[in-house]
Amino acid sequence: MIHSTSSIRVRYAETDQMGFLHHGHYAAYFEEARVHWLAQLGMPYRELESQGYFLPVLELQIRFLHPNRFDDLLSVQCRLETLPRVKIELFYEVCRDGLLTTTAKSVHAFMGTDGKAMRPPPAFLDGLSALLHPKTPQRT
Amino acid sequence: MIHSTSSIRVRYAETDQMGFLHHGHYAAYFEEARVHWLAQLGMPYRELESQGYFLPVLELQIRFLHPNRFDDLLSVQCRLETLPRVKIELFYEVCRDGLLTTTAKSVHAFMGTDGKAMRPPPAFLDGLSALLHPKTPQRT
Amino acid sequence: MIHSTSSIRVRYAETDQMGFLHHGHYAAYFEEARVHWLAQLGMPYRELESQGYFLPVLELQIRFLHPNRFDDLLSVQCRLETLPRVKIELFYEVCRDGLLTTTAKSVHAFMGTDGKAMRPPPAFLDGLSALLHPKTPQRT
Amino acid sequence: MIHSTSSIRVRYAETDQMGFLHHGHYAAYFEEARVHWLAQLGMPYRELESQGYFLPVLELQIRFLHPNRFDDLLSVQCRLETLPRVKIELFYEVCRDGLLTTTAKSVHAFMGTDGKAMRPPPAFLDGLSALLHPKTPQRT
Repeated sequence: MIHSTSSIRVRYAETDQMGFLHHGHYAAYFEEARVHWLAQLGMPYRELESQGYFLPVLELQIRFLHPNRFDDLLSVQCRLETLPRVKIELFYEVCRDGLLTTTAKSVHAFMGTDGKAMRPPPAFLDGLSALLHPKTPQRT
Repeated sequence: MIHSTSSIRVRYAETDQMGFLHHGHYAAYFEEARVHWLAQLGMPYRELESQGYFLPVLELQIRFLHPNRFDDLLSVQCRLETLPRVKIELFYEVCRDGLLTTTAKSVHAFMGTDGKAMRPPPAFLDGLSALLHPKTPQRT
Repeated sequence: MIHSTSSIRVRYAETDQMGFLHHGHYAAYFEEARVHWLAQLGMPYRELESQGYFLPVLELQIRFLHPNRFDDLLSVQCRLETLPRVKIELFYEVCRDGLLTTTAKSVHAFMGTDGKAMRPPPAFLDGLSALLHPKTPQRT
Repeated sequence: MIHSTSSIRVRYAETDQMGFLHHGHYAAYFEEARVHWLAQLGMPYRELESQGYFLPVLELQIRFLHPNRFDDLLSVQCRLETLPRVKIELFYEVCRDGLLTTTAKSVHAFMGTDGKAMRPPPAFLDGLSALLHPKTPQRT
């Protein structure tokens, strides 16, 4: 799976007095979608951290097209487009009843427990590579 | 100082669609007041943690008397009433322009890096004891 | 249904540097459970607000028995024990793999758009009354 | 004043288990800086809303250069570079002890109570224009 989709319902605590899902909460939604995506890839973030890998956010860009509101059921898609080398770029789309309300992109690097950037775990790269470039079945 | 007072201005992100400071954010306000109180006591929480002490919350009780709103400037008092043994009880009052809007109580225990309860650092107890029971100046 | 159970997975954004689900986020979890409970009762909170009723929190008491952590899947039960008159008392239990980690109680009042306390909607009381005191089937 | 600077101390509740200020909280910091900037301009956001103007976020771009941690005292600068027409672009810099840790840009539109985009209040534009293009003192 190069992409995964999470269902997230807007909490009352996440609204603001404008009556909208406050824009600051989308980062946590994207993170939840990212964690879900990693789990579907077979590399739960919890395990990555227990192996000494962290995935801090280096960049976050969000475009708010339409507001969302309390109790809305949102589908949040997380998508990888290119095989990461050192940095990982992920793309997000938030939809409500088929309407695209929000798009975003995040950039990450793998970081070790010493706070320094490091290469992604080999199993991570191999897994992604197989997904992005599935082998053509060979003729015999 | 057995008590300290912090000034906290309500952020827009902390409002909800009822138009109030959402009740879930008071815990962070009390925590900010607690951190301020510890710093004034000469035992910054940052240092306590670096020495291997944590202060997890065991109980939290809040009474919401009047709502607060965006941009309100609140004074949050944190107060110790009795010398702690194993558990520490702290009391809070949130005022806005002299009006008492919220009261609370939190109970904590000192915890070590192994997650187990431990006695408070001796310097902490000695410092508090001196504050709660200042020595009467002796005549000669 | 006098009680309902919500499944909530702990977000990374909700952890703190102690490595725990930060205690301040439980209020939003209880609120999510409360909203779920109301929906199951046939009185979605979204509709109550659109009819001019709000349910502000007057009191919140939480006991933290065991910490929860990132990615834990929690079951949060919301339960009514007595038929409300003006105030509504709700009780909560947070379990992880059958372990009771947190208990809480919240007290609410119905409030109108003018910010004043008001009686609960009659349909709300009738619905709850029927649930709490189901009629004994009559003999013929 | 085309720019303003806010002092914000990182709360414990805002840290995550990586030991950093969680990236999702920066949006609220920028918002606090924006509110402060508007107040210094003589147009408190609270008053704008009471006059029926809202300033929803259309875009948010953040670059995280260095992490921040619990109890760090940050200076958050909010800056206007060009006179807005319909959209307003604001730039942010977060510094800690002179080190630039985070940069950001937000784009906003004025919105009316009907949820539709509208022109900024004339007093807002006139005020900004005077600041951006101060009149050259006339010779006599």
